[in-house]
Amino acid sequence: MSAVSASAAKANKAKGATASTLTTDELRKMDAYWRACNYLSAGMLYLRENPLLRTPLKAGQIKDRLLGHWGSDAGQSFTWVHLNRLIKKYDLDLIFLSGPGHGAPATLANCYLEGVYSEVYPDKSEDDAGMQKFFKQFSFPGGIGSHCTPETPGSIHEGGELGYSLSHGFGAAFDNPNLIVAVVVGDGEAETGPLATSWHSNKFLNPARDGAVLPILHLNGYKIANPTVLARIPAEELEWLFKGYGWTPYVVEGHDPALMHQQMAEVTERCVLEIREIQEKARSAKAGKVPERPRWPMIILRSPKGWTGPKEVNGHKVEDFWRAHQIPILDPKTNPVDLKLLEKWMKSYKPEELFDKTGRLVEELKEMAPVGAKRISGNPHANGGLLRKPLELPDFRDYAVDVKKPGQIEVSPTYVLGGYLRDVMKKNMTSFRVFGPDETASNRLQLLYEASKKTWMEKILPEDSDGTEIAADGRVMEMLSEHTLEGWFEGYVLTGRHGFLSSYEAFVHIIDSMFNQHAKWLEKSKLELRWRAPISSINLLITSLVWRQDHNGFTHQDPGFLDVVTNKSPHVTRIYLPPDANCLLSVADHCLCSTNYVNVIVADKAPHLQYLTMDEAVKHCTKGIGIWNFASNDAGEEPDVVMACAGDIPTAEALAAVAILRERCEGLKIRFVNVVDLFRLMPETEHPHGLSDREFDSLFTKDKPVIFNFHAYASLIHKLTYRRTNHDSFHVRGYKEKGNINTPLELAILNQVDRFNLAIDVIDRVPKLQATAAHTKEWLKEQIIESINYAHEYGIDRKEIREWKWPV
Amino acid sequence: MSAVSASAAKANKAKGATASTLTTDELRKMDAYWRACNYLSAGMLYLRENPLLRTPLKAGQIKDRLLGHWGSDAGQSFTWVHLNRLIKKYDLDLIFLSGPGHGAPATLANCYLEGVYSEVYPDKSEDDAGMQKFFKQFSFPGGIGSHCTPETPGSIHEGGELGYSLSHGFGAAFDNPNLIVAVVVGDGEAETGPLATSWHSNKFLNPARDGAVLPILHLNGYKIANPTVLARIPAEELEWLFKGYGWTPYVVEGHDPALMHQQMAEVTERCVLEIREIQEKARSAKAGKVPERPRWPMIILRSPKGWTGPKEVNGHKVEDFWRAHQIPILDPKTNPVDLKLLEKWMKSYKPEELFDKTGRLVEELKEMAPVGAKRISGNPHANGGLLRKPLELPDFRDYAVDVKKPGQIEVSPTYVLGGYLRDVMKKNMTSFRVFGPDETASNRLQLLYEASKKTWMEKILPEDSDGTEIAADGRVMEMLSEHTLEGWFEGYVLTGRHGFLSSYEAFVHIIDSMFNQHAKWLEKSKLELRWRAPISSINLLITSLVWRQDHNGFTHQDPGFLDVVTNKSPHVTRIYLPPDANCLLSVADHCLCSTNYVNVIVADKAPHLQYLTMDEAVKHCTKGIGIWNFASNDAGEEPDVVMACAGDIPTAEALAAVAILRERCEGLKIRFVNVVDLFRLMPETEHPHGLSDREFDSLFTKDKPVIFNFHAYASLIHKLTYRRTNHDSFHVRGYKEKGNINTPLELAILNQVDRFNLAIDVIDRVPKLQATAAHTKEWLKEQIIESINYAHEYGIDRKEIREWKWPV
Repeated sequence: MSAVSASAAKANKAKGATASTLTTDELRKMDAYWRACNYLSAGMLYLRENPLLRTPLKAGQIKDRLLGHWGSDAGQSFTWVHLNRLIKKYDLDLIFLSGPGHGAPATLANCYLEGVYSEVYPDKSEDDAGMQKFFKQFSFPGGIGSHCTPETPGSIHEGGELGYSLSHGFGAAFDNPNLIVAVVVGDGEAETGPLATSWHSNKFLNPARDGAVLPILHLNGYKIANPTVLARIPAEELEWLFKGYGWTPYVVEGHDPALMHQQMAEVTERCVLEIREIQEKARSAKAGKVPERPRWPMIILRSPKGWTGPKEVNGHKVEDFWRAHQIPILDPKTNPVDLKLLEKWMKSYKPEELFDKTGRLVEELKEMAPVGAKRISGNPHANGGLLRKPLELPDFRDYAVDVKKPGQIEVSPTYVLGGYLRDVMKKNMTSFRVFGPDETASNRLQLLYEASKKTWMEKILPEDSDGTEIAADGRVMEMLSEHTLEGWFEGYVLTGRHGFLSSYEAFVHIIDSMFNQHAKWLEKSKLELRWRAPISSINLLITSLVWRQDHNGFTHQDPGFLDVVTNKSPHVTRIYLPPDANCLLSVADHCLCSTNYVNVIVADKAPHLQYLTMDEAVKHCTKGIGIWNFASNDAGEEPDVVMACAGDIPTAEALAAVAILRERCEGLKIRFVNVVDLFRLMPETEHPHGLSDREFDSLFTKDKPVIFNFHAYASLIHKLTYRRTNHDSFHVRGYKEKGNINTPLELAILNQVDRFNLAIDVIDRVPKLQATAAHTKEWLKEQIIESINYAHEYGIDRKEIREWKWPV
Repeated sequence: MSAVSASAAKANKAKGATASTLTTDELRKMDAYWRACNYLSAGMLYLRENPLLRTPLKAGQIKDRLLGHWGSDAGQSFTWVHLNRLIKKYDLDLIFLSGPGHGAPATLANCYLEGVYSEVYPDKSEDDAGMQKFFKQFSFPGGIGSHCTPETPGSIHEGGELGYSLSHGFGAAFDNPNLIVAVVVGDGEAETGPLATSWHSNKFLNPARDGAVLPILHLNGYKIANPTVLARIPAEELEWLFKGYGWTPYVVEGHDPALMHQQMAEVTERCVLEIREIQEKARSAKAGKVPERPRWPMIILRSPKGWTGPKEVNGHKVEDFWRAHQIPILDPKTNPVDLKLLEKWMKSYKPEELFDKTGRLVEELKEMAPVGAKRISGNPHANGGLLRKPLELPDFRDYAVDVKKPGQIEVSPTYVLGGYLRDVMKKNMTSFRVFGPDETASNRLQLLYEASKKTWMEKILPEDSDGTEIAADGRVMEMLSEHTLEGWFEGYVLTGRHGFLSSYEAFVHIIDSMFNQHAKWLEKSKLELRWRAPISSINLLITSLVWRQDHNGFTHQDPGFLDVVTNKSPHVTRIYLPPDANCLLSVADHCLCSTNYVNVIVADKAPHLQYLTMDEAVKHCTKGIGIWNFASNDAGEEPDVVMACAGDIPTAEALAAVAILRERCEGLKIRFVNVVDLFRLMPETEHPHGLSDREFDSLFTKDKPVIFNFHAYASLIHKLTYRRTNHDSFHVRGYKEKGNINTPLELAILNQVDRFNLAIDVIDRVPKLQATAAHTKEWLKEQIIESINYAHEYGIDRKEIREWKWPV
């Protein structure tokens, strides 16, 4: 026993004596059940026939290509089996997240033994034939993946990309007071940044109203080919680290199954009892007493990598070494020695004692698992759509900005949205959360705090009453980690609830990869797995936009997240660019009602001109794209030019350009098209929201010049429209990485999305203006120079720009 | 004094008594110097005229728009001033990284006081007029940004996006044995994932050969609008946390400047002495003795946010509260009370004592700073290009694969590359490092270990001798954190060295945002700042590609990083898709010689067919795009179709398609074009590598069908080529989010990049085949069905597919 184990054993003993050890019979049965898990795990890796080894194993019964991960399987199943005991003993409601998702055989084995796998996939029945199919499909073309993929009942965390298990776990626990979320954290995963900071999630969990997260740090010592950092630092540092993170660590360490079972039984039970004690204390406190953040228990499970597997293969150490990471015996198909070794190893689990003659787990072991919805793999929280209730929503029309004429008043769209979200929050005080990295107020959503403050379980100081807006019972989630927020959010919706996240635009790239993974999860769930009930969408408000980084400058200018989004399946991605507050309200309402999407909403926080009445906004957003008549003068005819735009700031500049042109270029017929739903631009064959070519042509004409002023990188519009009839006439303006500290107009000018450059674009492309508009073009160029000079002199834009309104 | 401070004070005393306290005169002068810093910081935020307040401050002298961050300025300058003392006393070589880069006024103020700012920007001279310009330009259009942007002498870390200060610091320290890298870590930044795991970088720093990193965790308590987690957890948890991370934390805490100066002087000096002691011990050890990882010192500086600023403004607490984050006094321009308050505050620093009548820092304070290259802001390590020496490179041709005829032998390209990198390493044992997240061997670069093992400062076990390849003096950097690796790499090249990073393709998205920020840094440095000498490129090898995720499945399939790269400036981005090992060698050599780029190289690790001799490869890669004659049969004529491809796996499938077509469609004239340098596809007006339209048309014809088989998402090719003459005839195949566990051919078929679908694409698009090739098309469809069936039955592809060669 190492120092940490010794000291932890001492700590383990320090608390209550209620945790019992196993009787001989319990121990025997738990170990047998565990052997069944391990047998199945090995079977998945190797066998395509003869699943119970009822006859001597032959090379032909081995899969042609051996794929999968053995390393953490036994340790994970060990944990699961011990959790089963406590679910039964204490009637717990518990789900299991596998951080080392590569060890999916553990989850799959338990799922199969609990009968859930056969219920969901009847052909994988609980008998020889079903087991054979179950084995063969694993990590096999046409079968299932080697992680805890969406196809895996009981899983809400695939673990293909590492780092998010713990934040997913906390998301699942929020507002689920009776749920325990057991999260196995791999020691490889623990090295990632997102995981390293997510241990601090305990500062945002309120024991009075939230469930519990029980992390099990699985120190099996190795990654693919390296030792792990946490497995080799001195034991005292390991203990300090987790105490420093605010946890009470309990260590279970060893390799002898019998001893380990006793240790694990004691420690897991102690953790459950401590969790209950913490919760009872918080929940029985007098009204008004603010709960303090407890030091929640966690487990450090130090078991050998590849535990119970072959100790040595061909002269190489395998168990308790990185060589156990994937396939422990490499070549049973062609090497008879390997084949024998494999058979001997698999038989060491004594399958004949575990499964009856039909191939079903023997009855006394069957009884070890919980039943019905208490089975971990059958827990409805892990198929959150089953529990999901639609949000109760206020009528978003009640929050409308009163727009009497277009382009006359300025309002912060996100501030308006904040009022609506406040009332969404009020009506759904146990199933809706808003997430943001220290920026909810900066993003002008501060009306939310009238419904609920920010969650804060640490000390609150007297001065905080002056606007800090923090409280232990707050429901607005702020931590300066986009990773953790997105992880919480995903965990929250995956277990059937609802949410909304806002981020500075540039830094939503921090979670590109999390978006990718969630979109992949949704695509599989939605298109291939009817048994997974739809979950609420991830709603991402992208704000503090590229065009308003007046003081943050170049680092804060990046509208490229939309490019990442458009690479994912059209079945699960939506992008909206509402041009004003009423449109934003309409879009937000639509997104909050939706399921199984990632909705990306792009809307700025600064005050902007408002254009549409609420009725007009609803119609416009429902169509997703449309001609704005007030800005167009091509009634009933083909225009000379189409001015199109997407995004609030580009829309304002495009309108200003149109105003200039209509004043100065008599007879010019302009059509003004605004795009809210970006995917309307795609062909209908490529995206469910795509316009037909006929619809598209009716808006953009077949041959007239189109000036498209876009919020993000111009090439994205080309990517979406290159197949359209009139694409060759599309001239798109967007951000082109030109910026520093700039006034709004100056930045627009640098990237040519400003009113003056747009007007020049029109003049350059409409033949009939070539002769007549030379003077106007000169004037426009002068405006550009004057604007820049003014900005550099005074640091702000000219008054007539700042206060520009649509001429009425 | 809080508990942590008390306990730390005890710890502070536990070690050697050599750290001295300040004399009265030293204290007076240091405080005065610090006041000068703080005065300048405030001046930057507010003043456009009257920089030294020689006349009563008037509203018209205030900037029209107040932008910038005050919160951490005083604490950062405080740290800098104390480091100055030690640089002088111990002749240290030291640079300073500002994690809270938003507090750039601190860095800028010190840079100005040290005279470096005026040397680099002579118009910002050390006098009234220069100071006025220095103030006005700050966070001002046409001026400089409010972070430690590339324009800031002495900075290698902008801090606009939070999370990377410490990993940048370690990168700077590696192989710089005499350098101390002081890193101020903001307590907001400390909540991010990347920062949270980067504390573990101490496990990868070898005191015998590397410099030291001295982190100063700046606990000023607040973010924009929230308290920070680390500032409010119990003091004992804070101490455990950093001891758990393996550091020895020293606490400096308070607000009274006189007391704080004494504490800081003692603690900083103690840290420097401890660093020297650790280094001396490691460096004087007997040869062969493996150094142990020491517990390096770090500082926790708990000072009030907005320290020395206004305590209260308009009834609101400001100092020591989040309201000090940005502009502490909001409206001096129009509110006379605010104006008075501002003047009083700025005068409290007594500028008349600090600056002489010309506006220059008084001489006795000037003497407080180091001189020449010892000045932090003038340290050449922070302008690493000055120190950079080109790599000594072996001749890459010596590693050539012997290709006698195209498409006959299979080789792992990255394995070949590993041999070359090994010898690059051998020739540059103090200036070249290779980075990879636990995957160097998995990515088949394991020959590297013949030159150097993986850095590992923790315990090494006997079994590690069997292939773990770890050693304290290793130079291959592996940790399971892409963020940390990329941060190390950036810090390493920013200080004048060289490196190479490999990553699984899907997970390079984890560092999308880091790539964005580094590309922005490079663009400004390269295009606008002649004084910044060119630094080595970031070389990213993207491998374990989407098309070979046979066992990892859908989560590991994402080739979208290229889309992110193409949004950044063409002046600093390069993308290469070498089709075989010889091309990979040629490309790698080119990238290692280059400066000021991010080079992205896409090459798979699995064995693939080889096509070009080394001479051919060099020619092909130099052109970046070209016709492969061996695969074309259109000699001297217009082809019927162009088969184009980019990427090793798409190239192999495209070739197989051509072989099928040439065998079965007599008379069909095919031109085969391979693209290595992706930006050759862009117009020459848009990218320096772009082909002219004439060159492009000569390859792709003006009107013949082009089937383009692409490694990544098809839309990227459209994005790059939509302006080309023949774009309407481009039919691009690429990854379209269809995948699971698949054989290589099956995955290709699902996404239609396989030989059979490509051949069908040709048949469908070449008019003369419509009549004649119906039978072939049927045969192709049968092949597709048979291939899928075989894969689902056996889990592998048919032998004739696996062993296919180009027909000779």
